[in-house]
Amino acid sequence: MALEKIEKANDIKNLTNEELQALPEEIREFLIDTISHTGGHLASNLGVVELTMALHLVFDLPKDKIVWDVGHQSYTHKILTGRKNQFEGLRSYGGISGFPKRDESDCDCFGVGHSSTSLSAGLGLAFAREINGDDYHVISVIGDGSLTGGMVYEALNNAAALKSNYIIVLNDNNMSISENVGGLSDHLSGLRTSAGYTGFKEGLQYSLEKIPGVGEKLVSGLRKMKSSLKHLMIPGMIFEDLGVLYIGPIDGHNVSDMVRIFKRAAKYNGPVLIHVLTEKGRGFDPAVRHPSRFHGASPFDKEKGLPLTSTSPSYTDIFSTVMRKMGDRDEKVVAITAAMMDGTGLKRFHNMFPERFFDVGIAEEHAVTFAAALATQGLKPVVALYSSFLQRAYDQVMHDVCVQNLHVVFAIDRAGLVGKDGVTHQGAFDISFLSTMPNMTIMAPKNKYELSDMMKFAVDFDGPIALRYPRGEAVVEYEEYRKDIELGKAEPLAEEGDVLLFAIGSMVDTAMKAREELKKHGVMAAVCNARFAKPLDEDYLKAAMNRYDVIFTLEENAISGGFGEHVLSVLNDNHYKGRCEIIGIPDKFVQHGAPGVLKEKLGIDVTGIVNRVLEIVK
Amino acid sequence: MALEKIEKANDIKNLTNEELQALPEEIREFLIDTISHTGGHLASNLGVVELTMALHLVFDLPKDKIVWDVGHQSYTHKILTGRKNQFEGLRSYGGISGFPKRDESDCDCFGVGHSSTSLSAGLGLAFAREINGDDYHVISVIGDGSLTGGMVYEALNNAAALKSNYIIVLNDNNMSISENVGGLSDHLSGLRTSAGYTGFKEGLQYSLEKIPGVGEKLVSGLRKMKSSLKHLMIPGMIFEDLGVLYIGPIDGHNVSDMVRIFKRAAKYNGPVLIHVLTEKGRGFDPAVRHPSRFHGASPFDKEKGLPLTSTSPSYTDIFSTVMRKMGDRDEKVVAITAAMMDGTGLKRFHNMFPERFFDVGIAEEHAVTFAAALATQGLKPVVALYSSFLQRAYDQVMHDVCVQNLHVVFAIDRAGLVGKDGVTHQGAFDISFLSTMPNMTIMAPKNKYELSDMMKFAVDFDGPIALRYPRGEAVVEYEEYRKDIELGKAEPLAEEGDVLLFAIGSMVDTAMKAREELKKHGVMAAVCNARFAKPLDEDYLKAAMNRYDVIFTLEENAISGGFGEHVLSVLNDNHYKGRCEIIGIPDKFVQHGAPGVLKEKLGIDVTGIVNRVLEIVK
Repeated sequence: MALEKIEKANDIKNLTNEELQALPEEIREFLIDTISHTGGHLASNLGVVELTMALHLVFDLPKDKIVWDVGHQSYTHKILTGRKNQFEGLRSYGGISGFPKRDESDCDCFGVGHSSTSLSAGLGLAFAREINGDDYHVISVIGDGSLTGGMVYEALNNAAALKSNYIIVLNDNNMSISENVGGLSDHLSGLRTSAGYTGFKEGLQYSLEKIPGVGEKLVSGLRKMKSSLKHLMIPGMIFEDLGVLYIGPIDGHNVSDMVRIFKRAAKYNGPVLIHVLTEKGRGFDPAVRHPSRFHGASPFDKEKGLPLTSTSPSYTDIFSTVMRKMGDRDEKVVAITAAMMDGTGLKRFHNMFPERFFDVGIAEEHAVTFAAALATQGLKPVVALYSSFLQRAYDQVMHDVCVQNLHVVFAIDRAGLVGKDGVTHQGAFDISFLSTMPNMTIMAPKNKYELSDMMKFAVDFDGPIALRYPRGEAVVEYEEYRKDIELGKAEPLAEEGDVLLFAIGSMVDTAMKAREELKKHGVMAAVCNARFAKPLDEDYLKAAMNRYDVIFTLEENAISGGFGEHVLSVLNDNHYKGRCEIIGIPDKFVQHGAPGVLKEKLGIDVTGIVNRVLEIVK
Repeated sequence: MALEKIEKANDIKNLTNEELQALPEEIREFLIDTISHTGGHLASNLGVVELTMALHLVFDLPKDKIVWDVGHQSYTHKILTGRKNQFEGLRSYGGISGFPKRDESDCDCFGVGHSSTSLSAGLGLAFAREINGDDYHVISVIGDGSLTGGMVYEALNNAAALKSNYIIVLNDNNMSISENVGGLSDHLSGLRTSAGYTGFKEGLQYSLEKIPGVGEKLVSGLRKMKSSLKHLMIPGMIFEDLGVLYIGPIDGHNVSDMVRIFKRAAKYNGPVLIHVLTEKGRGFDPAVRHPSRFHGASPFDKEKGLPLTSTSPSYTDIFSTVMRKMGDRDEKVVAITAAMMDGTGLKRFHNMFPERFFDVGIAEEHAVTFAAALATQGLKPVVALYSSFLQRAYDQVMHDVCVQNLHVVFAIDRAGLVGKDGVTHQGAFDISFLSTMPNMTIMAPKNKYELSDMMKFAVDFDGPIALRYPRGEAVVEYEEYRKDIELGKAEPLAEEGDVLLFAIGSMVDTAMKAREELKKHGVMAAVCNARFAKPLDEDYLKAAMNRYDVIFTLEENAISGGFGEHVLSVLNDNHYKGRCEIIGIPDKFVQHGAPGVLKEKLGIDVTGIVNRVLEIVK
């Protein structure tokens, strides 16, 4: 096996030609086999096997720096830098991450997780090289989906100032996470079908001629001559217009072609973009046919290409159903997502109301301001995003929605601990950052019924309103508690007790279970479902102050600036003389691992809560 | 006077040709005269007088919607919609805003303040029109500087999906707030000097032919034919590549030319960009020569073109000096700003160390990730931004800097109330949003000496660290208190007292003055300079708990999630039995007005603090 000879970076360079020929299939087999039981990102990784090999054959790691955009496609990179044996622990607590991480390997030069940062990081590395007088290559690998994020253009706009080599590899599979959208995608389609690609060999030949050596002067002349003539000959105008040399498109599954081009591109003085065409899911039929399903996959049966476990409905599923119903009931309801039509559950809404559905690409900032403008015209936009991605639109939520007090509904999926995707995907901060925004209302449901009720409440509301719910299976218990949602009103679930567990969202279930456990220890804990993180139910809290000696707040959010600290502030304003104990995510980043394991480690599972209560009560 | 005949929207349409000829000069005279004593944005407003007239002559407000990017150039728009008589109160408390605001006029269809949102808002309005079956025009007016912000591309990428009319006016004065930067700017330069403009009349003729009527089919044919031939004939490739029809460049000071083109563009089905060339500061020589000085101007002598009042050094000035010194002392220090070289005081650093200075354009997201990458290579990046603009980079500060625990220094200018620029520019939230980020350290200086000491501390630190300081004159008192900065250590200034004023940043001065006032009322208040908002000095607070019956926290930041709530949390963890009173900006947006007036209204000036203390103590 060729794969067994690779124990560290650059070992790939010692393989024979035959071994190199065999390597892609070996890697694919390894990936499919491993991910089928660990879960993880499959389709994107299968697409870049040869591309990653070519990069590792040409460049010298860790001296040279490869920045992977988003980073979920870095598995082959991890294998080629000696981490194959750690794949059993992929995305598990204490195991290797599903994304590049600086503290995992010196071959991971920049940590990623969110889209469209790789060019900014690559430029930083390239300019640092100039300032420090160092000598290394910098390569950013970015997918066509990530090109829909605005940061990329901010970086491209700054790339022209760089006078030394910097390589951008555009990994174009004509897919974002789901199908790609927008004018740029059309533009890339144009390039893909242009003469440059259909006459691929010739195009390649031409590209090579342009590169340093004999062709350099010609290229430099062309670049200076800002004339229309250039446009006749070189495709990729949009990059050229921004001052970045464009080469391509080239075949992303032909290692030797890529090696030749990368080698020559590495000699060019300035930023150069190499447009590489790859097939997402290549080598695994189910992933080619359903790349979206195999974007981030749960463990699956590799023969049948189907998930191993059937799960009960997730909050996303419930949201999906509610949105379909609301779209039907109210023609003012509009749905917006940022490249997450499947992930957020909006596909059914899209199918039924295509004219009221907008997938804007990986463009959260645009999504929010766009929604604000829709709201000014009496529409009822629902912006469905993952919690950690909403961070991208902090300023737009604040200014375009909250300052103007517009009725935009934020459906925040993956709020709380998401688990295996790790630190960049944990939805740990949304209560904190939304709470500081004047005019904002924040809710979180205890179970699937409440998600449904809250969504209806939110759509009928007037003003900025957010609803956060966790990844994974929805809680189905507590159907017996289903009081109407009232603005800023909590829902006491069990009032008898010496202490109060004042919980929000997913922690209501935990609190109810902790109550049962605590009974066994002779401690009676009341439970109240806060429902609203903002505004808080001050009337309820004032009454609770007189009744309970200790008030515990429970949230699946950072303690800092979160629900509990705001409850504490209300208690303080009202001169509470009892004790307030805030339970949530402490002030540190939470890495990857199964959510259950993470909650246990953080002390926010049932056992952790019970112990904390007992410790204080006794 | 033609100007006197304009009392409401559309009145401009009733002017005679002679009156229209005279109007630009009348408006300019009015603007120069007014702004010379109110202060405000001058250069940008002088540049768009004719452009605004042309828009108002063609379109029907408030039915049609004009979205001004940033909005500081909307003064003529305000005049033409009946707000001329309110200009005496421009930017004053209770007066009209310096930016478009929905609650000020129904002709202000979308509030703005931060850059690069106008296309997202414009698209929202256009799609809402389609969904609602309404009939109005949407026009976004955006400067070339705002094109450096990534949101614009996110919106442009989505524009191609629109099949009905939407007009983007690119107001190109070849200036951002200071000189514009980047590949796109070069591209626009190319367009400006292209045959299309030097042969302007011919170019115009050609543009007109392309527009609906006879030329429509031709254009539509051209657009479909994604061939290089198109590139030979039509400039503005980058917009065309994204699926937006490009027209221009045209003369932005010729009203009748613009009227003709706007009328025809209004008939085009789809997004169309009209590239208009204007001169920033036109009609006022000092503003033409120093557009940056007259971007946001203080009251000035309109004969001499010089500021009326000379002010003592601001925090920005002190920062400027410190940066120059640190650049000299340590060649690893690198400075980064987002189109605010003058505003942040980095001009001197730029002049002395051009290779270590980066103005990235209005691109805060890129700026932060770029800095993070520089930090991985041992450089010491100082990112200088205004507090409210840093909001744009929330996710990048969190992920690229804090998750990776990289040593990036954030020099946060305009933290706290900025005054007349109003709600979108108040730096009210930085302590709140930075506090929730693990690994972040946050400081604020009490006076100019401490700013200097803290900057040195920050540059010598290792890890994410932010320093916030307010707009305006630096406090020069309290030089006698200048203890070394120690991580997480507060600085008690006056320990004798029954109550404690625990203040941070600008509020230390307020606390010291309140202390003196309180003495007159027989109340002794100790004062401690917190220095660090994170980490808090827990040792000091534990000692203070035993000594003071009431601890007041003072900050020029939102109470929600701010300094005070975190102090309260520490006190709560340590079971403080006294009272904690949090003083800061309450949970609502603060509009424009002089900072002194705003502080009085919010009760965070000396008198407000004294009254609050007396109320509680007595």
